[in-house]
Amino acid sequence: MTRTHFAVERLAFHPDSLPDCPHCWLLVRGGDVLCREDGSPILSSLPDGIDPLGAVPLGALDGVSFSALGTEAVPTPFRPIPLRDLFGRVDGETLAIAGRAVHLVRFDEENRFCGRCGGPTVWKEDEVAKVCTRCGGVVYPPVTPAVIVLIRRGRDILFVRSPRFPPGRYSLVAGFVEPGETLEHAAAREVAEETGVSIEGLRYAGSQPWPFPHSLMAGFFAEYAGGEVRPDGVETEEVRWFSPDALPDLPGKMSIAWALIERHLRDDSPDPPDPRG
Amino acid sequence: MTRTHFAVERLAFHPDSLPDCPHCWLLVRGGDVLCREDGSPILSSLPDGIDPLGAVPLGALDGVSFSALGTEAVPTPFRPIPLRDLFGRVDGETLAIAGRAVHLVRFDEENRFCGRCGGPTVWKEDEVAKVCTRCGGVVYPPVTPAVIVLIRRGRDILFVRSPRFPPGRYSLVAGFVEPGETLEHAAAREVAEETGVSIEGLRYAGSQPWPFPHSLMAGFFAEYAGGEVRPDGVETEEVRWFSPDALPDLPGKMSIAWALIERHLRDDSPDPPDPRG
Repeated sequence: MTRTHFAVERLAFHPDSLPDCPHCWLLVRGGDVLCREDGSPILSSLPDGIDPLGAVPLGALDGVSFSALGTEAVPTPFRPIPLRDLFGRVDGETLAIAGRAVHLVRFDEENRFCGRCGGPTVWKEDEVAKVCTRCGGVVYPPVTPAVIVLIRRGRDILFVRSPRFPPGRYSLVAGFVEPGETLEHAAAREVAEETGVSIEGLRYAGSQPWPFPHSLMAGFFAEYAGGEVRPDGVETEEVRWFSPDALPDLPGKMSIAWALIERHLRDDSPDPPDPRG
Repeated sequence: MTRTHFAVERLAFHPDSLPDCPHCWLLVRGGDVLCREDGSPILSSLPDGIDPLGAVPLGALDGVSFSALGTEAVPTPFRPIPLRDLFGRVDGETLAIAGRAVHLVRFDEENRFCGRCGGPTVWKEDEVAKVCTRCGGVVYPPVTPAVIVLIRRGRDILFVRSPRFPPGRYSLVAGFVEPGETLEHAAAREVAEETGVSIEGLRYAGSQPWPFPHSLMAGFFAEYAGGEVRPDGVETEEVRWFSPDALPDLPGKMSIAWALIERHLRDDSPDPPDPRG
């Protein structure tokens, strides 16, 4: 089993797992993580001028507890590094801790006030959540499910180009699950909306956290069933079949898109379900 | 393919699918849906005294658009019915529309103010979202992923009892996905926490929306791998194997728990993955 990038595996999340043990810090500014000169985002003490008040609990690992702080300032000699650029520069567990830091600092900043009554919130003592000091309402960090689908026609793969992509870049169909949808329905709807084609034989392939800022991607394989490709002009400006021998510029190796493509290329994708089943 | 209860299948969600077409309403009070004397929650016009201001868009179906309104009052002759009690009393599409109504009215009520700046919010015109009138921040309805696991040991099934359950009731292990987890990691963690046992051969079985108030359940089958059962004393007060011949009181037929159990009983659960794979 290869590692699922950005996935926390051993970081224990419960506040009671944060006793008086050695403490490390991460500093977050928007989607960036502040790194030391040696490239590490894990700090054993806070730099001067950074107030530990409002620390965001991240969990504990191997007897060390971790907290994050949002900051506007970038103290010398730290450098702000986009979270996705940490991939390949730090080990997998550090990447997962940094992902949770970006996720939860954003949650903290987006929930300073209670959505129900407008009162100020504070971190809850016994849960990873914020609580309103006025009405007592509790809000938990969001985990936002999304689907991504590798559509096959024989060996060929259907790729889409978003107007937001850099030139030459393609990826797989993906989108958020809407309220009341199953994962499967969201997959079929996104494929129909973004490409115009219909699919069959949809089968689950695995999941990956994607902390940009707080998604959980559920990956699927599917077979092309019919229809002409047609970009929707909003999410997709181009929809195109590619042969494994001539693939375009693709998403990074840290993505579940890449993992799905790689499985297809090495013939390791699950077979379509038996239509008689 | 049997229907997935509470799943919207044809309700188109995009605001641009809500043109000047016939309009129907649902009234929601907390987790209850207000029903007419004939038991239907779908109203072709608003009763006197209910202000359409602040209507929550639900989508369109067969040329009819639907909106929901939260209300404290219960106008005569309406009756508040808990959403889950609508199961079996209304058709599947009505149930799905009612589920989305409860989900989105709750989202509306929990996001009257911007979490970032405390300013008042309004519904966004071009998306199913609320936007802050002060800072412009946008918030989307939450869809909260959770996992549920049917653990097998031969034909036996591992059930848990929560202290919150009615007497005699058991269900499958379930819990929310934490930030940074995969679905698979969440499943293994919840099983370990709630039962003390370890599992292997985890395999995805399907998903179901669960609008109590806004979950998306991902169902899995798994094989017992080792360990003694041990309730955690908080989420579970009892953990116990049951044979298919002597099952306890179980969750309702509207639940994915029931669907997983039913598949296991009729030998329709997927085989464990090949450990050599």
